[in-house]
Amino acid sequence: MYKIDELISLVNKQVESAEYPSAPSGLYEPVSYMLTLGGKRIRPVLMLMAYNMYKDNVMDIMPQALGLETYHNFTLLHDDLMDKSDLRRGSATVHKKWNDNTAILSGDAMLVLAFKHFGVNKAFDDFVKATLGVCEGQQYDMEFETRNDVTEAEYMEMIRLKTSLLLGYALKIGAVLAGASDEDASHLYDFGEKMGLAFQLQDDILDVYGDPKLFKKKLGADIVDNKKTYLLINALQLANPKQKAELMKWIEMPEFDSDEKVAAVTSLYNNIGIPELARKKVEELFAESLCSLDAVSVPEDKKAEFRNFANMLHGRKY
Amino acid sequence: MYKIDELISLVNKQVESAEYPSAPSGLYEPVSYMLTLGGKRIRPVLMLMAYNMYKDNVMDIMPQALGLETYHNFTLLHDDLMDKSDLRRGSATVHKKWNDNTAILSGDAMLVLAFKHFGVNKAFDDFVKATLGVCEGQQYDMEFETRNDVTEAEYMEMIRLKTSLLLGYALKIGAVLAGASDEDASHLYDFGEKMGLAFQLQDDILDVYGDPKLFKKKLGADIVDNKKTYLLINALQLANPKQKAELMKWIEMPEFDSDEKVAAVTSLYNNIGIPELARKKVEELFAESLCSLDAVSVPEDKKAEFRNFANMLHGRKY
Repeated sequence: MYKIDELISLVNKQVESAEYPSAPSGLYEPVSYMLTLGGKRIRPVLMLMAYNMYKDNVMDIMPQALGLETYHNFTLLHDDLMDKSDLRRGSATVHKKWNDNTAILSGDAMLVLAFKHFGVNKAFDDFVKATLGVCEGQQYDMEFETRNDVTEAEYMEMIRLKTSLLLGYALKIGAVLAGASDEDASHLYDFGEKMGLAFQLQDDILDVYGDPKLFKKKLGADIVDNKKTYLLINALQLANPKQKAELMKWIEMPEFDSDEKVAAVTSLYNNIGIPELARKKVEELFAESLCSLDAVSVPEDKKAEFRNFANMLHGRKY
Repeated sequence: MYKIDELISLVNKQVESAEYPSAPSGLYEPVSYMLTLGGKRIRPVLMLMAYNMYKDNVMDIMPQALGLETYHNFTLLHDDLMDKSDLRRGSATVHKKWNDNTAILSGDAMLVLAFKHFGVNKAFDDFVKATLGVCEGQQYDMEFETRNDVTEAEYMEMIRLKTSLLLGYALKIGAVLAGASDEDASHLYDFGEKMGLAFQLQDDILDVYGDPKLFKKKLGADIVDNKKTYLLINALQLANPKQKAELMKWIEMPEFDSDEKVAAVTSLYNNIGIPELARKKVEELFAESLCSLDAVSVPEDKKAEFRNFANMLHGRKY
C-alpha cells in the first residue's frame, strides 16, 4: 500500500512531466501554468488510493489520474474568470496574467485534454457524470449570488454538485478501474461525497470561527462578501423577525466597516445558534462518511490511509 | 444510399429530440437554444454519408453525429463570445441573450455533452484530435488579428485547423465507425480537409467578388475589418513598395468611408493579381479533393452524393 505522501509525489511527477504540443504556445502555456501552480492533488490521490485498495500497480491508472486533475484545474481556470478572481494559490490567475479570451480558449483545450488523458475505459460514464455535475454546481452557485431565499437543501445540493461529486467519483473511478464490486464502488463514492460535504461546511465555519493565528485568510471574508454559506443560509431561515431585519440590514448596506460587519453578523450567528448547528452537521456527515468506509469489503489494513486522511480532515483547525 | 436532404432531416430530428436535464435550466437552456438555431448540419451529414458508403444503418451512429454537431456548436458559442459577436444565424448570440458567464459555463457543459454523446468507440482518438485541433486553429486566428506579417502558409494552416480538420475528421470518423480500411478513411479525411480549405478560400473571395445580388452580407466586410484573409495576406506579401504603402495606409486609417476603402483595396487586389491567384488556389484544392475521393475503394455509385456535394460547393456564387 502506498502512503498518501508517496501518491502525491507520483501525481506531481506525472503532472510535471505531461507534454503538450509546442505550438501554439499561447494556447498550451496557460494550461501548463495552471497545472503547475501547486495544489494538494486530492482528487487524483483519492483515485489512486481507491485503486490501491484492490491493486498494487497504481501507475497503470496514472493517465486517468492526470485526466481528473486536468479537469479539476480546468474548472478552477474558468471559475476564476467567471468570479473575476485575481489570485489562485498566490499567483496571478490565467485571465489576469494573459487575458479573458486566453482563459476561455486555454480552458476549453484543457477540458479536451482531460478527456484525452482519461481516454476510453469502463469508468468513462462516471467521468462524464462527474464533469457535467460540476458544471451544474457552478451554475447553481452563480444563481445563488443574487438570491436571499436559498434553502439549506438547495445549498447542500449545490456544494454536493460543485465539490463533493468529483471527490466521490475520484474514489468510485479508482475502484471501478481496479475491478471492485459495484457495492464497494458505491460505498467509496458515498465516503468521498459525504467527506466532501463535511469539508465544505468546515470551510464555511472556519471562515468565521477559525483560529486567527492559524487561518490563512482574514476571518470573516464570507461575511464581508455576503457569501451564501451554510451559516448565512441557516441564519436567514432561522432568525426571528428582529434578527432577520438586523441581518438584512448588514447584507444590504452598500458601505460599511468590515470589522464592524464581521463582529455584528458573527454575534447574530451566535445568538441564532448557528455554530452549534453547523458543527453538528459536520459531525453527522463525518460519521456517515466513515460508515460508508466501514461498509467497503476489504480488510481493515487496506483502509488505513483512508482513516488517516479522514482524521486529518476532521481535526483541521484552519 | 441516403440522399443528403434525407440525412439533414435525420440529423435535425436527432438534434431536436435530444433531451437535457430539466435543472438547472440556466445551464441547459442556452445549450438547447444554440443547437436549434439552425445551420446546415454539414459535419454530422458528412459523417453519416461516409458511414453510408459502407453500411446502411446510419441510425447506429446518430449519437456520434450528435456529438460532433454539439461540439461544433460549442465552438460557435465560445467563438461568438471571444469575438464579441451579437448575432448568430440571425438570432442573438448566447452571451447577448444571457450573459458572458452563462456563455462560458453553458459552453463548457456543451463540450462535456459532446463527449457524452460521442461516447466510447474506436474513433475516440480521432474525435480528440479534431476537437483539440480546432482550439489550436482558434488560437492562431486570434493571434493573427494583431499581426501584419502572416504568411500564406501560416494562414492555410490556421484555416486547416479551425475549419477543415473537423470536416476531414467527420468523414474519417464515419468511415472508421463503419469498419472501412485505414486507406479509405485517410482518403476520405483528405477529401474533406481539401474541400474545407477550398470552401474557406471561396468565402474570402466571395466577400469581395461575390455577386452583390446574391451575397447575403454587404460585400467587402472583411476589407472594412482588416480581416487577415487569403486575399489580404497575399496582397501584403506580393505588393510592390508603392502598393504596399497604399495598402498599409488603408489598414492603419482610424476613420474612413467604408465604400471608399472597399473600392480602393479591391482595386489594389486587382492590380496585384489577387483574384486570379485565389481562384487558381481554389481550383487546385477542389481538384486535389476530388482526387482523394477517386482513391476511395468503393464502387462509383456509392460516391454519387459526395460528387453532388462537391459540385454544389464548387459552383456556389454566394
